[in-house]
Amino acid sequence: MIPFDGAKLQQLMEETGVDLVLASTRHNVRYLTGGYVYHFHERSPRVASSQYLAFVGVPRARIEDAFYIGAPSQMRGLDGLPMWIERRSLETGSAHSSATDAASMAHGLGVATGTIGVEMPFLPASTFVALQAALPYATFVDATDLLHELRAIKTDAEIATLRAVSAQVAAAIQVGFRSGYDGVTTQELAVAIAREMGAHGVTFLWSFTNAGPDYLRDPSPTRWERGRMLHLDCGGEQNDYLADICRMGARGEPSALGRELTEACLAVQGSVRGKVRAGMTYGDLRATAHDALSTSGHATIGGIVAHGIGMVSHEQPMINNPAQAGRTLAVGHVLSIETEFHHPEVGHVKIEDTVAITSHGTEGLGDLGRELQVVG
Amino acid sequence: MIPFDGAKLQQLMEETGVDLVLASTRHNVRYLTGGYVYHFHERSPRVASSQYLAFVGVPRARIEDAFYIGAPSQMRGLDGLPMWIERRSLETGSAHSSATDAASMAHGLGVATGTIGVEMPFLPASTFVALQAALPYATFVDATDLLHELRAIKTDAEIATLRAVSAQVAAAIQVGFRSGYDGVTTQELAVAIAREMGAHGVTFLWSFTNAGPDYLRDPSPTRWERGRMLHLDCGGEQNDYLADICRMGARGEPSALGRELTEACLAVQGSVRGKVRAGMTYGDLRATAHDALSTSGHATIGGIVAHGIGMVSHEQPMINNPAQAGRTLAVGHVLSIETEFHHPEVGHVKIEDTVAITSHGTEGLGDLGRELQVVG
Repeated sequence: MIPFDGAKLQQLMEETGVDLVLASTRHNVRYLTGGYVYHFHERSPRVASSQYLAFVGVPRARIEDAFYIGAPSQMRGLDGLPMWIERRSLETGSAHSSATDAASMAHGLGVATGTIGVEMPFLPASTFVALQAALPYATFVDATDLLHELRAIKTDAEIATLRAVSAQVAAAIQVGFRSGYDGVTTQELAVAIAREMGAHGVTFLWSFTNAGPDYLRDPSPTRWERGRMLHLDCGGEQNDYLADICRMGARGEPSALGRELTEACLAVQGSVRGKVRAGMTYGDLRATAHDALSTSGHATIGGIVAHGIGMVSHEQPMINNPAQAGRTLAVGHVLSIETEFHHPEVGHVKIEDTVAITSHGTEGLGDLGRELQVVG
Repeated sequence: MIPFDGAKLQQLMEETGVDLVLASTRHNVRYLTGGYVYHFHERSPRVASSQYLAFVGVPRARIEDAFYIGAPSQMRGLDGLPMWIERRSLETGSAHSSATDAASMAHGLGVATGTIGVEMPFLPASTFVALQAALPYATFVDATDLLHELRAIKTDAEIATLRAVSAQVAAAIQVGFRSGYDGVTTQELAVAIAREMGAHGVTFLWSFTNAGPDYLRDPSPTRWERGRMLHLDCGGEQNDYLADICRMGARGEPSALGRELTEACLAVQGSVRGKVRAGMTYGDLRATAHDALSTSGHATIGGIVAHGIGMVSHEQPMINNPAQAGRTLAVGHVLSIETEFHHPEVGHVKIEDTVAITSHGTEGLGDLGRELQVVG
């Protein structure tokens, strides 16, 4: 059974004139196969003088004619799975040879002279050159945004994955706040958070660590001193779904200003989250967010942004794209909302939340520890 | 100070006619900068409709004129580091715009009409197209093998990193053997190993899990039953240096044949490891390996291979490349050596070791638990 909205994909391909989508990124291969990526090269694609490369090809004419291209060592594992794509070529699976295999498939499907959507910012150059050579009469276009659109509405299963990874990342942040001591370095905090995620089966992605009053966010020898604020803005991933959460802490009681800015941040976030709902336009959400910031009392040192999150950060709904201001939020959209203040006496105060839009309103994902964490 | 062998790079560029190396992979950026990659995008390059992309450019004429291209948010962190490349453009850092910035640098260095070595199997297609447009008179060649050559001899610091990550991966494998129960699935074992690596700050890469007598190596619902052999062939990474180790276990006493094949595997490995030394040709190493296998008593069901390992699996020394059979092993080369047998009553028996070539002979990296692990 096709694990995505095939009619929607056909419509998107129709609108953009694409005859064949040829996806090669790990996340889109996973999405289009319904969850399968080859475990060996999931995190380690490079090998010898090239890299592993799989393709999922989906022709507009008949979604059921989709094909998968991979490596010989995948055959035994794939044979044991209920993977819906039955047309498979597992001859090669490398950056160059997969292109030749994909071109043969395109010929077989009669789209060799058509328009082929590839992921241009991700497709290896050698693969692109080989595709062009093997399909000299095809037109290649970038399908990155088309695939973003396809993935825009999350299923319950996707939201469950986002809920789980967001909860894990939020919990790892709490461990981070509590792992330190007076004068702990932000590098040490980042290591503790990475290990906590790893111990729970979450792929650690990043840890921005701001120990005020400096604005540096890279993990470094900077120390988190007593009475100082800290933000931990951390990313983690499970099965290519991303969590991106920021929380505030202080070692011992912070300054009144530090507490006030954190409260203001939470108030702005709360105000926006209270108003987000299905049917609201992207433009209205932006206006609502800026209204909330403007009444925070600290607008001149503040910023607020909302963006889609799922397999990619800043995917659909792309709230910040003025050209899409008239589009409306829908059930199944998932948003990251982030408010921040920069103050030279306090540092970089920031709260970032993830909310899923439901038929009843919104659901916060990973809401653990949103309030200021005073530790030590 | 230049953190790599600048004279060797110049010589390699001379031999291949490359005027400018333009490296874009995470591992080569790390190598050429002397350890720096932007932490935010180290594991999470994709963002919005593109991906983060950094470049290190090194001109042949003057290594000191090397440049770095990245994103604005890197500036504060980079300013605090002793990174040797002082020519930096931190304007953009995305797959498309980094190409434009790199082209400007190439113009400034007078190599815009020269030969530019890029990493063709890794460079994004959109970046390549933008480079071609911005440097219409340049000739682009693949520099992947050139960079492999540059990295072939490991420094003591690199070997220390490989020693540490190999020890961690070997230890995680032992935890894997001991984490199970009669009938544990290979999927459960793979999860346990990934978490163990993650808890120790190692990036989990893969876990091949063969529970005999089947040959399937993908983590799956296959069960490891009492009396059966298991191989755990696992990869992990720290700072882009890779460990790849395989060990054998049995749940309770295995069959005599299972034990015999494991002993034979270890004997072959031991024989080859005892003979590897600096000065030996790649061809002699292959012959030595095949001699050892042929006297194992199980050559018809066996295989042996040796290959370089470091930042990439199957990097220099490329023992299996017949064209390089006359080249000689040197102090600082690091090899993966793997022997395996397939037997329908036992399964897939395999031992894989990593050895560094030293001035005194060799040093095993991650040698923990090489003997058959009988558990449960």
